[in-house]
Amino acid sequence: MAMPPSIDSRAQAAERDRADPLAMFRDEFLVPDDDIVYLDGNSLGRPLRAVGDALARAVDAGWGERLIRSWTEGWMDLPLILGDRIGALLGAVAGQLAVADSTTVCFYKAASAALDARPGRLEIVTDRGNFPTDRYVLESLAAARGLRLRWLEPADRTAGPSAEEVAGAISDQTALVSFTHVDYRSAAILDMAAITQLAHDAGALTIWDLSHSVGSVPVELDAAGADLAVGCTYKYLFGGPGAPAFIYVRSELQASLRQPIWGWLGRRDPFHMAPGYEPAAGIRAFLSGTPPILALSALAPGIEVVTRAGLERIRAKGIALTELAIALADRWLAEHGVTVASPRDPRIRGAHVALAHRDAAALCRRLADRGVLVDYRAPDVVRLGLSPLTTGFAEVWDGVSVLREVLGGPAAAG
Amino acid sequence: MAMPPSIDSRAQAAERDRADPLAMFRDEFLVPDDDIVYLDGNSLGRPLRAVGDALARAVDAGWGERLIRSWTEGWMDLPLILGDRIGALLGAVAGQLAVADSTTVCFYKAASAALDARPGRLEIVTDRGNFPTDRYVLESLAAARGLRLRWLEPADRTAGPSAEEVAGAISDQTALVSFTHVDYRSAAILDMAAITQLAHDAGALTIWDLSHSVGSVPVELDAAGADLAVGCTYKYLFGGPGAPAFIYVRSELQASLRQPIWGWLGRRDPFHMAPGYEPAAGIRAFLSGTPPILALSALAPGIEVVTRAGLERIRAKGIALTELAIALADRWLAEHGVTVASPRDPRIRGAHVALAHRDAAALCRRLADRGVLVDYRAPDVVRLGLSPLTTGFAEVWDGVSVLREVLGGPAAAG
Repeated sequence: MAMPPSIDSRAQAAERDRADPLAMFRDEFLVPDDDIVYLDGNSLGRPLRAVGDALARAVDAGWGERLIRSWTEGWMDLPLILGDRIGALLGAVAGQLAVADSTTVCFYKAASAALDARPGRLEIVTDRGNFPTDRYVLESLAAARGLRLRWLEPADRTAGPSAEEVAGAISDQTALVSFTHVDYRSAAILDMAAITQLAHDAGALTIWDLSHSVGSVPVELDAAGADLAVGCTYKYLFGGPGAPAFIYVRSELQASLRQPIWGWLGRRDPFHMAPGYEPAAGIRAFLSGTPPILALSALAPGIEVVTRAGLERIRAKGIALTELAIALADRWLAEHGVTVASPRDPRIRGAHVALAHRDAAALCRRLADRGVLVDYRAPDVVRLGLSPLTTGFAEVWDGVSVLREVLGGPAAAG
Repeated sequence: MAMPPSIDSRAQAAERDRADPLAMFRDEFLVPDDDIVYLDGNSLGRPLRAVGDALARAVDAGWGERLIRSWTEGWMDLPLILGDRIGALLGAVAGQLAVADSTTVCFYKAASAALDARPGRLEIVTDRGNFPTDRYVLESLAAARGLRLRWLEPADRTAGPSAEEVAGAISDQTALVSFTHVDYRSAAILDMAAITQLAHDAGALTIWDLSHSVGSVPVELDAAGADLAVGCTYKYLFGGPGAPAFIYVRSELQASLRQPIWGWLGRRDPFHMAPGYEPAAGIRAFLSGTPPILALSALAPGIEVVTRAGLERIRAKGIALTELAIALADRWLAEHGVTVASPRDPRIRGAHVALAHRDAAALCRRLADRGVLVDYRAPDVVRLGLSPLTTGFAEVWDGVSVLREVLGGPAAAG
C-alpha cells in the first residue's frame, strides 16, 4: 500500500480519523463524553455497546428462563465455540482452543503439561523481562519440580531475545521454552516460527503468551508449529476486566499432554460423575471447572467485532498509530530526555509504544491528572496502548501533546 | 419453635406459601411465567432481578467510564470484600476468604497447599461418593506426587462417612482429609467439627467443600477449627452459571501454606511486576490471575439477599420444604418403589432430597417433559433441590405430584 502522508498538525490527525476505514467501529463502543484520552486499551479494552445486551440476554433468557436446560442447549460448548473463533484470529484450525480460567491458570496448565511431557529435562528457558505472571508460574513449577530457570537477558532489551540468543540458551536439557509473542513493555514481536523451530530441534516444547497479540497483530499458530499458547481477552478482544483467558494445544499433542487440574468439566462424560478421571477427547480435556457463562457471554461481541473489522485493517492502523506516536515522540519529547523503547521497525512492533524516561512513574501520574490514561511499566516506561478499533489519530496527537506539556514543553496548539 | 401443621392438600401448601416469612424474597428473582416447577436450585440458583442492574453498572460505569482507574477504585479488593461477606455466612471472621477461579481450581490450590504442608505423609482420606471434581483433583495430585487415596466406603451411604469410619481411616500417614460438608447426592451433613478434630489429632489438614452448604445451612468454619474450605456460588448464592468460587484459609495457616499457582495478583505489590515471586500478605496470596470483575459484580446481589433474608429463616424453610417432600414421597411414591435416600433427621440434612428409584434417569427425563426440572444423580437418584428463597411449598407439592403421575399413580388433584 502507498504510505499515507505524514501528520504535521492536529487538523491533519483529525482528517486522518475521518478517512479511517475503521472509524465507524468506534461508534460501536461505549465512549463516554468526558475528554479522556485513553491510551491504555492494551491493559483494558473499552466495552462494546453490545456487551450490555449480550449479558442481559444471558441472564434473562439463558439463565432465567431456560435455567439448567441451558447447559445442554449451548453452554457446555461455549468455551470451545469461542475458542474456535479466537483460533480463527490466530491461524489455528478448529478444535485447538478453549476459553476458560484466567491467563495465569491457563499458563500453569500449559506449562505443567509441557514439563510432564519432557521428564528428565531440567531446564526452562524464558526471558527475564517476560510478563510477571508467566515468570511467577514458571518459578512455581520449577520450585515444585526441582528444575532450573534459564533467564535470558537480551543484549537489546527493546528488541527482546533474538533467535541467536535463544539458540544459545537451549540444549538437550531444555524441557520448555516460553516467551510472550508481543512484549508487554516494548511491544517487540518475537519470531515465533524461528524460536519454535529451535526448541523443536532440541526436543523441547514451547508456550507462547499471546496476550498482547490476539486481535492486534497477525499470528499463525499452526503454521509456526506452536505447541501451546495462552492469552488474555480483555485487551484487544474487549472481553472486560478479568475476562476468561484462552489456551491453545496443538491437535497432535492433545492426546499425549495432560493438564494437572483434573476437574469434572474436563472429564469424558462429565455428568456421569463416574469414578476415576478419564480426560475428555480433544481440547475439552484442558477444561477443569464449570465454564463462566456470563463472562463468556460478555466476551463474544469482542471476538465478533475484531473478526468483522478484519486483522489486516486492524494491523495496518496499529502500525499507523504507533508510527505517529513515535514520530511525535521524536519531534517533541526527545529533547526532554524521552527515548523510544519500542522497535522502530513496524514489522516487529505490536500496537503499543514504550517511551522511556527516568521519571516515568511521575509522568504517568501527571498525565492521569490531565485526563490522559497510559500505563507505567517499571522501571522507566510510559506505555501508550493504541487500540486500533477505539483509538484515534487525534487522540494520539492529544496524548503526546499533553506529555510534552508535563515535561515542560509548550502547551499544545489547537 | 412450634411445629407447623402438616400439609395434606395443595390448598394447604399454597396457604403455607402465603404465610411464609420469606415469600417476599421470591419477588426479587426473575421467575418467568411459564409453569415450570424448578426443583434444581441446588444445581443453578435462579437469577435475582438485581443482577441485570449490577452488570449494567459494572459495564457502563466501572468499565466504560472509569476504565483502568477502576482497578484502584475498588476492583482489586472485590475478591476479598465478597470473600468477607461470604465468610460472614460461614462463621468466618474477615480476612480468610477470597472469591476467585472455579471451585475446581480453588480446590486444587487448597489441596496442593495442604499436601505441601505435610511432606512425607502418603495418604489422602476422602469419600468414594464425594463430588466428582473433588475426587478428580485429589486423584491428579495423588498421581503427581505418588500418594495414596484412601477411599471411604461408608456403611450407610445415605448418612455418609461417620466420625468412627473416618477415625478408622486416619493415621499418622494421613496428610489430608477432605469431604463435602453437605453431600451433593444425599444431602447428608457431616460433622465438620468432629472430623476436623480427628484429622488434627493425627496431624492432618482438612478441606471442606461447602458448595451445597453456603447459603442453605449454618456453617461455623472458625469454631470447627477448619483449615481450608472451598465452595461454589451458583447454587444457594445465586451467582449465575459458572460463577466464581471461594476459598477459605484459616488465618493462622495463611503464612505457612503456599498455593501452587503463583500469579501476579497473588504477589506482594503486583503492579511493581518485580522479579521473583513473593506472596502477598494474608488471603490475597491465594489469588492467581486477574479477578473476573463482571462475574464478581453479578455475584454480589446473591450474597446480599441471603444475608438480608438471614440464614436462620433460610434454614428453617429448607427443613420445612424437605420435610414436605419426604412426607409426600412416603405417602405417594413408596408404593412405586421410591425410597428416600436422604437422612430423615432434618438436623443432618441439607436443603435437597434424594429419592432413589432404579429408573431414576428415565424418571428425570419424563419429569422434564412435564415441566418439572430436577437433577439425575447416577446411578439411581432423583434429586429435588429446594432453594428456600425461591422454592414454594405448592411447588414441592406439584413436583412430587407429577413424579407420582409419571410413576403410574393418579393425576394430581387441584
